Amino acid sequence: MQFLIEIDKLKTIERRTRIIHGERLENDAEHSWHLAMMALILQGHSNKDIDIFKVVKMLLVHDLVEIDAGDTFAYDTQGNIGKYERELKAAHRLFGMLPEQQAKELLSLWIEFEMKETQEAQFASSLDRLQPIIHNHQNEGDTWQKYNITSEQVLIRNAEMANGSETLWTYAQQLVQHSIDQGILKQS
Amino acid sequence: MQFLIEIDKLKTIERRTRIIHGERLENDAEHSWHLAMMALILQGHSNKDIDIFKVVKMLLVHDLVEIDAGDTFAYDTQGNIGKYERELKAAHRLFGMLPEQQAKELLSLWIEFEMKETQEAQFASSLDRLQPIIHNHQNEGDTWQKYNITSEQVLIRNAEMANGSETLWTYAQQLVQHSIDQGILKQS
Repeated sequence: MQFLIEIDKLKTIERRTRIIHGERLENDAEHSWHLAMMALILQGHSNKDIDIFKVVKMLLVHDLVEIDAGDTFAYDTQGNIGKYERELKAAHRLFGMLPEQQAKELLSLWIEFEMKETQEAQFASSLDRLQPIIHNHQNEGDTWQKYNITSEQVLIRNAEMANGSETLWTYAQQLVQHSIDQGILKQS
Repeated sequence: MQFLIEIDKLKTIERRTRIIHGERLENDAEHSWHLAMMALILQGHSNKDIDIFKVVKMLLVHDLVEIDAGDTFAYDTQGNIGKYERELKAAHRLFGMLPEQQAKELLSLWIEFEMKETQEAQFASSLDRLQPIIHNHQNEGDTWQKYNITSEQVLIRNAEMANGSETLWTYAQQLVQHSIDQGILKQS
């Protein structure tokens, strides 16, 4: 029960992306819910057969470590140094609050997500990449404009989405092109 | 994809309960995430064997109808009249944005949750009842004080939690008693 009270903190961890229907920044808890819904709806776009419940579980827990380690901006090269070590420490503290078997299961789900070796992790990661592109496309390039991000950075950063889903990666590239055409994403 | 953009609105639907680690009200999206996590952690407390993935899916979608119908306060007797009809209309509009098979699946999951006849629905509903009790116990009786709710109202409203989980209902009653003892919930 202490774990379930502790993870309420995820509702206070802000991302760099705004929600679509409002002005404020999105928090990690509602982001995780949105990704779980995307997994249910878009599962047919996975490159290979997947255990969809595993994908949903991964997405529900994937950002919990940010309760201790904070949200690291995807395009912040400096901030991303040592990120995995910081987050692994957080994972041990947080999941360590659970009974041993549950702690093991959630820790191994989180590590699997981070390693991106299984098809489940690759598909889950694709959704985590796709969601902010949809948000920025809907929000007139919000985060891209604010942090001076170029289309080249978006494409390089997110190309690995193809490992999880070729069709979603094609769709993401269309959103990027459309954003360039609309003048809300700078072409480089 | 339009459905996935539309449901972002759930992040703007406020509940009457505050988050535990902050002053603001909780929104439906982060509430749904929290319940899905509770399902994963507390599944062993279900009275009977359950399909836990079904419970998680129910909890992820259970409040989507509030995008159109709004959050109806549990203790608002007037507001609860006609609630199901309003929400059913919302369910048809929202799930109707999906391909037919997915629309059918999510609509029937939502109806199953509302009917509370299956063990999955009863367990999911227990978690939906337990979570605000935990929040109010942690938050010095916040919503109870604000709306002048008595322990009798809390106990009557939530007694059906026992259908999903005897042990969680016992735990909830302990939280209620502890809240009375602390003077944060008025005994009636």
